[in-house]
Amino acid sequence: MSAFQTPLLIDCLQVSNPCRERFLEWRTGGLDCVHVTLAIWETARETLSVIGKWNRLFAANDDLIALAGNAGEIERIAASGRTAVVFGFQNSSPFEDDIDLVGIFHTLGVRIVQLTYNVQNNIGSGCWEDVDHGISQFFGRNVVREMNALGMLIDISHCGPKTGFDALEYSERPIAITHANPSEFVGFDIELNRRNKPTDLIRAVAQAGGVIGLSLYPKIMRGGSQATLDDFCDMIEWTVEHIGIDAVGFGTDYYTGYPVEAVDWWRAGRWARESPLKLPSAFSPWPDWFASPAAFPGVMAALRARSFSDQDIDKIAGGNWLRLFDESFGPLPID
Amino acid sequence: MSAFQTPLLIDCLQVSNPCRERFLEWRTGGLDCVHVTLAIWETARETLSVIGKWNRLFAANDDLIALAGNAGEIERIAASGRTAVVFGFQNSSPFEDDIDLVGIFHTLGVRIVQLTYNVQNNIGSGCWEDVDHGISQFFGRNVVREMNALGMLIDISHCGPKTGFDALEYSERPIAITHANPSEFVGFDIELNRRNKPTDLIRAVAQAGGVIGLSLYPKIMRGGSQATLDDFCDMIEWTVEHIGIDAVGFGTDYYTGYPVEAVDWWRAGRWARESPLKLPSAFSPWPDWFASPAAFPGVMAALRARSFSDQDIDKIAGGNWLRLFDESFGPLPID
Repeated sequence: MSAFQTPLLIDCLQVSNPCRERFLEWRTGGLDCVHVTLAIWETARETLSVIGKWNRLFAANDDLIALAGNAGEIERIAASGRTAVVFGFQNSSPFEDDIDLVGIFHTLGVRIVQLTYNVQNNIGSGCWEDVDHGISQFFGRNVVREMNALGMLIDISHCGPKTGFDALEYSERPIAITHANPSEFVGFDIELNRRNKPTDLIRAVAQAGGVIGLSLYPKIMRGGSQATLDDFCDMIEWTVEHIGIDAVGFGTDYYTGYPVEAVDWWRAGRWARESPLKLPSAFSPWPDWFASPAAFPGVMAALRARSFSDQDIDKIAGGNWLRLFDESFGPLPID
Repeated sequence: MSAFQTPLLIDCLQVSNPCRERFLEWRTGGLDCVHVTLAIWETARETLSVIGKWNRLFAANDDLIALAGNAGEIERIAASGRTAVVFGFQNSSPFEDDIDLVGIFHTLGVRIVQLTYNVQNNIGSGCWEDVDHGISQFFGRNVVREMNALGMLIDISHCGPKTGFDALEYSERPIAITHANPSEFVGFDIELNRRNKPTDLIRAVAQAGGVIGLSLYPKIMRGGSQATLDDFCDMIEWTVEHIGIDAVGFGTDYYTGYPVEAVDWWRAGRWARESPLKLPSAFSPWPDWFASPAAFPGVMAALRARSFSDQDIDKIAGGNWLRLFDESFGPLPID
């Protein structure tokens, strides 16, 4: 990746309610690129309105942000002192049952799509399902092929383990875990373990050229809301040691700015009257050392105090994501 | 327009059910560019699937056609021996009530939008309404402004006369009548007159830099299905004489390949149980001298036999449309 000279800082998942205040936090935090979420349970039509909202935000905040569709655009936007936004879905719901919608949303800028969100859909299974039947024979494999052909990165963060392994098997291109943590490091509490990833899966993703974004979401960190910055740096060190320096990046899963009802929407969408999680509808507080992405310089300083080389730091900060984006966002060459 | 050296042949409206056979007819006819219809009554979501269908057609027929988003692309596609397709709507139904959808469909390639189709909608009135209340104060004017800003050509072919004049008043850019004929030439039969345009409106469109596409649709021609090629050439001569050589082009309104139920859909959409037109649900036969767009060379030969100069012929064939497309399909410069 000699084309990329400047080390960039990339957060490969945030899901905040977007507004200028968030974009200012990105600039304070030194974030060159953020992968944002357009859809959790939204239909195609609803997702068009989310893109419409973002288009208004791009017009009103063009001093702070711009949409990026490839690695070169990310670099140019970063060089202009702004944050590049990469559009993503945390569920394939905007594709509905229509393979043509993959290309249409690619045209509209979407570059990363998580195949399922917690529960089973027409493509595969989510991490909450007791039995993960893997990627469906027809629509699931067709969507993987279509995403491969167009240049849309497959994300398995909230998928079940078999669906993750199936994605690796059926995808001709590297896949990503944009925001999850290693179960082996965090611990095997059943709820945490559902969202976090087994070491063999992370390793297989890395061996195929993929990257894992380590998350600061308290519910999936060792220590929960009491997790310290040292705990987070320990997890980065552990993952680099067990998976490899070329496969580790950030995927904070940071969110803010929603009414508390958003929790019910994320947990149950329109597929249940109430969430199967027997937990109160409340936000988990973020640790005081990461009250917002504006705190990224502190995270980077703590990381630099560890034993990483400058080159390693650059890879973790954004070099690995940028390399994967560069390999992922263009069309497959025709045979 | 010295940039455009090669005379092109452009048909600024066809509404056939698209398939390879139609594209082969375009090549036989020597058509360099065709403006096609994606939506009559379709919602945003339904229109995405129409675009999806076209994307499959582009992939399967890339030896014959390609999508064009501006005049330069039309020229390059024509120079490659293929027909450039320009996406359009015959109604604003895909915008629903959402101003953001204008930009989203522009991103997806839509460049020409007729404000209304025969009847009143949230933007204005169609030509069938006994009273045309003009362009609505809020959504209508907002859509005109948004189309102007993004570079989407306003089409008033099926609009009522006041909505047409209002579009001229509110639009900062030229507008078009992509497919209609002059009432004064065709005659004032009440039904024909509703679709055809009064001379003062056509003249005002031309004075603002717009173009009228003269139609071969039998129902709106002098002589109906008995209209001769001479009648059509007479109409071109009449329009050039009364409106001006820089404002006349083709907009055949040619269609084929549909089951007869399509007539009911066009006439009544989902807004009526039956069409207000007391006419049988049947297609009007095309004249034998224009059985399909493959017959364009015969039309051009008849036109060349008239008293037009070569330069005039080039303008009518496609030069006027290409000039208008070049002025219309880019964003407005920011003040």
